[in-house]
Amino acid sequence: MITRMTQLFVRTLREDPADAEVPSHRWLVRAGYIRRTAPGIYSWLPLGWKVLRNVEKIIREEMDPISQEVHLPALLPSEPYEATGRWEEYGDLLFRLKDRRDNDFLLGPTHEEIFALLVKDLYSSYKDLPLSLYQIQTKYRDEARPRAGLLRGREFVMKDSYSFDIDDAGLEKSYQAHRDAYIKIFDRLGFEYRIVSAMSGAMGGSASEEFLAVGENGEDTFVRSPGGYAANVEAVRTPVPDPIPYDDAPAAHAEDTPDTPTIATLVAVANERVPRQDRPWEASDTLKNVVLMVSHPDGTREPLAVGLPGDREVDMKRLNAQLEPSEAEPFTDEDFAQHPGLVKGYIGPQALGTESVTKIKFLVDPRVVTGTRWVTGANEPGRHVFDLVAGRDFTPDGTIEAAEIRDGDPAPDGSGPLSLARGMEMGHVFQLGRKYADALGLKVLDQNGKLVTVTMGSYGIGVSRAVAAVAENTSDDKGLCWPRELAPYDVHMIIAGKGETVGAADDLAVALSERGVSVLLDDRKASTGVKFADAELIGVPTIVVVGKGLADGVVEVRDRRTGERQDLPVAEAADRIAAIVKE
Amino acid sequence: MITRMTQLFVRTLREDPADAEVPSHRWLVRAGYIRRTAPGIYSWLPLGWKVLRNVEKIIREEMDPISQEVHLPALLPSEPYEATGRWEEYGDLLFRLKDRRDNDFLLGPTHEEIFALLVKDLYSSYKDLPLSLYQIQTKYRDEARPRAGLLRGREFVMKDSYSFDIDDAGLEKSYQAHRDAYIKIFDRLGFEYRIVSAMSGAMGGSASEEFLAVGENGEDTFVRSPGGYAANVEAVRTPVPDPIPYDDAPAAHAEDTPDTPTIATLVAVANERVPRQDRPWEASDTLKNVVLMVSHPDGTREPLAVGLPGDREVDMKRLNAQLEPSEAEPFTDEDFAQHPGLVKGYIGPQALGTESVTKIKFLVDPRVVTGTRWVTGANEPGRHVFDLVAGRDFTPDGTIEAAEIRDGDPAPDGSGPLSLARGMEMGHVFQLGRKYADALGLKVLDQNGKLVTVTMGSYGIGVSRAVAAVAENTSDDKGLCWPRELAPYDVHMIIAGKGETVGAADDLAVALSERGVSVLLDDRKASTGVKFADAELIGVPTIVVVGKGLADGVVEVRDRRTGERQDLPVAEAADRIAAIVKE
Repeated sequence: MITRMTQLFVRTLREDPADAEVPSHRWLVRAGYIRRTAPGIYSWLPLGWKVLRNVEKIIREEMDPISQEVHLPALLPSEPYEATGRWEEYGDLLFRLKDRRDNDFLLGPTHEEIFALLVKDLYSSYKDLPLSLYQIQTKYRDEARPRAGLLRGREFVMKDSYSFDIDDAGLEKSYQAHRDAYIKIFDRLGFEYRIVSAMSGAMGGSASEEFLAVGENGEDTFVRSPGGYAANVEAVRTPVPDPIPYDDAPAAHAEDTPDTPTIATLVAVANERVPRQDRPWEASDTLKNVVLMVSHPDGTREPLAVGLPGDREVDMKRLNAQLEPSEAEPFTDEDFAQHPGLVKGYIGPQALGTESVTKIKFLVDPRVVTGTRWVTGANEPGRHVFDLVAGRDFTPDGTIEAAEIRDGDPAPDGSGPLSLARGMEMGHVFQLGRKYADALGLKVLDQNGKLVTVTMGSYGIGVSRAVAAVAENTSDDKGLCWPRELAPYDVHMIIAGKGETVGAADDLAVALSERGVSVLLDDRKASTGVKFADAELIGVPTIVVVGKGLADGVVEVRDRRTGERQDLPVAEAADRIAAIVKE
Repeated sequence: MITRMTQLFVRTLREDPADAEVPSHRWLVRAGYIRRTAPGIYSWLPLGWKVLRNVEKIIREEMDPISQEVHLPALLPSEPYEATGRWEEYGDLLFRLKDRRDNDFLLGPTHEEIFALLVKDLYSSYKDLPLSLYQIQTKYRDEARPRAGLLRGREFVMKDSYSFDIDDAGLEKSYQAHRDAYIKIFDRLGFEYRIVSAMSGAMGGSASEEFLAVGENGEDTFVRSPGGYAANVEAVRTPVPDPIPYDDAPAAHAEDTPDTPTIATLVAVANERVPRQDRPWEASDTLKNVVLMVSHPDGTREPLAVGLPGDREVDMKRLNAQLEPSEAEPFTDEDFAQHPGLVKGYIGPQALGTESVTKIKFLVDPRVVTGTRWVTGANEPGRHVFDLVAGRDFTPDGTIEAAEIRDGDPAPDGSGPLSLARGMEMGHVFQLGRKYADALGLKVLDQNGKLVTVTMGSYGIGVSRAVAAVAENTSDDKGLCWPRELAPYDVHMIIAGKGETVGAADDLAVALSERGVSVLLDDRKASTGVKFADAELIGVPTIVVVGKGLADGVVEVRDRRTGERQDLPVAEAADRIAAIVKE
């Protein structure tokens, strides 16, 4: 196949688009692959659409051996999502609409409910299982802050699959099959990725891993240890220390601590006025109690206090991952006004928890074990309590993973210190379990003729996002730089001259096309410099220049990625370029 | 590729689904190709999805030589549709929604606006034209009465393309290129179709033709003449007779005509009480004046009177095709109450038109030419006027094509009497002209550096509808019966036995698969009768039975369509079946 640049619907841009925050977005727009239609909503131009379809092809080739392709609607009735609670839980993320008869519909963000109902509709026996179905489909999420082009859009393409098994062992097998297929897919897509343990999030369920594309523009933070532990930061469990005997601990005592607006000033004042015997007070000896307002999907709100060592901040993403589908926000001045028992800046556990008059739920960091001694607020302005002992002087309502994870924190499995990195979620494999099947009555008869609830898995790949992730991972300072399997064309041929040069280029393009090589032929009336810059921007892996070399009977072949050049005799060029393309 | 029935996600049904009105719907659901998710919204099961993708493949192969594939969003901002007026004009057909910031969006029913803006965004010169872009995409229309399965859905797949040209000659060329490609596509899809002249409808524009699948369950009526005229019934122009001299016509005179509730009784009474000199009165001598209420897209309403020969009914589809985007409905009792000047059942032209006190717009059938003499209402109960002469006694505001077309009516081009048939619109080619480009400011610089408005064409194919149309055209009383190119598998192999039979079938399936033949292998524990009925229901073109014949060293091969059988020696079976499949 030969496409002439003069015919191709494309316009390359010399300038970055104003809203481009990340390289993939910048290059995909500048090279004429995509074009914004509305915030978070993109049109795919011919070059971009070819790449997307190449990604789809890879996904189909790896999914077909383990799953059957189907296609469900994007416009969905609300009832199934009401049955599972997600109609409410999704909040503003869901695009909702009504039809002419005033029936509620939504644009599918993911299809667990509809797949469960479809299987319920058709199947009724354990003999029908295991079953795995997948689709590649346009999905919708009304993101609060659509950004970074294809990386976080409101309309996007996903591959979603669902497995249906009679028991946990079957689910585990289906999960592994998907995990293995995903490894093959992401290896072929050719960007750097990590598989990390993940939270289940709003989906319910148990085991869950994410495939993250490694990259500084990723929205997710993940950790890894030298010993091989890897997890999304939301999923990291803090190792719980052993309880400490506190028989010898001094009694708690409140002290004046004027001018201590920060943990650092508090530690300084504490060491000066209330020195500790064995060693100086440190920030990690202070107990910071942060109050938050939690909104539940049903619209109700309740306060929550989180106690954590003063040397750590609350990580709202980690905290909210534990609370999903509820969502916490910091207490506002108004919230404080409605809880006069809480003295802002001086909140202590004594004012919280089950025994407290304010009766605010109080959860602590897992490090706050029985016997730990703390400096914390005295619930009076300008005063702190010292030697307040967990389990003796206060009893929290439980623990919560809300504290930030830091470089060097120990891995929960003892595999060494954690290091932090950024990534973008590209895939997610998930043992859903029976939550959706239960809510929707998906049962089959087992071998004993007894109705049992089916257990489900849910598995996603961001297809349009993968285009951006590959662009992000492979582009350089000149533009895009596609892996062979994803490139919109095999060869980008530049006609660098007139007259006979044009004829020679045409002949070579035809010869390549006959060898199954697809050619983008730059036949524009433009300077070779402009053509070359565009070729580097567009990022086809092999660039062929037909021009001056013809006088010596050669054409030039460049590798877009390495920049390596070689001159090939015209007579051999078609065969040798075809060989390079099929390497 | 081999798919085992025990693994395939399918469940065939012995009974017709309750809501199935047409064969395609009945068979596609019973054979497990599609499943209803909501009214007019279907899920594609593995078999159905394969057929749909086969249709897409044919379309891409024929479109790629003349157009470039892109992919635009389905979720679209309202502004471009407001600019062209279609945000209002579409009325209830449009699915409208708001995002979390209260911006208006719609689910695209067709994409003229967005394509025009995309081209405006990228292109600016006549040198960039001509241009043709296409997409295969999920579209949305909130049909009042979704019906017939895939034939009229609310979510459906369409191929839509758009051409952009600098002048009318270019548009004509782009139009012809699409028309030619459509002929190739519909020929390959393999159902009976006709190309008919069509109305432009809500789209604006000039030349327009439809590709109709011929079939009694079609929603559209079309006409053809022995001389080759063919048109959608909405598009038929009535031949206009020459005016008639009326100098000798008697003066109009009102008469009592008691008990004449129908045209037939009126004609009988007229012939009895007011006989005509030259010949008896006929129904076609009466002028029936029908009043209607027209709703405009802007929400206003106004009455309209249509006068037509009493032997013809108003065809509301034809009438509304002329009025689009406005819509007419019959006058209600309430409407009559608000227009006391109109005596129901006795409305005459004297009470209508520009000269009337009621000032209702009065349009007549093109046959009501100057000099025609009519029997019509006298605007008094029980009385009619005789010898009322058009152009002498009344002057209508114009003509309108509102009368039904009947078998035997003359073709407008003089090519003989029309005959009526039913069909389903499968494709539409349309010279849009400059309506959308004007509304959206799509201009380019011409050769003289002057800004000129681009002229557009718009071309659609109902992709999911095509699946149903082929099913409709090819199914028989046993089930589906796919043309080779659309079939989900090449061969449906039935294992009719146990033990060695299973091994022989497996071997043959593998041998076929190695020859590039896809096999659906029925390995279920079911009777041969059940398997055979399912094979006929599913409709794969070639059915292979591996069973009793093995004793004689043969397998049976049946042609699903013709029912022809032949026994093939086992040793030759793979090669000979592969040859049949590739015929």
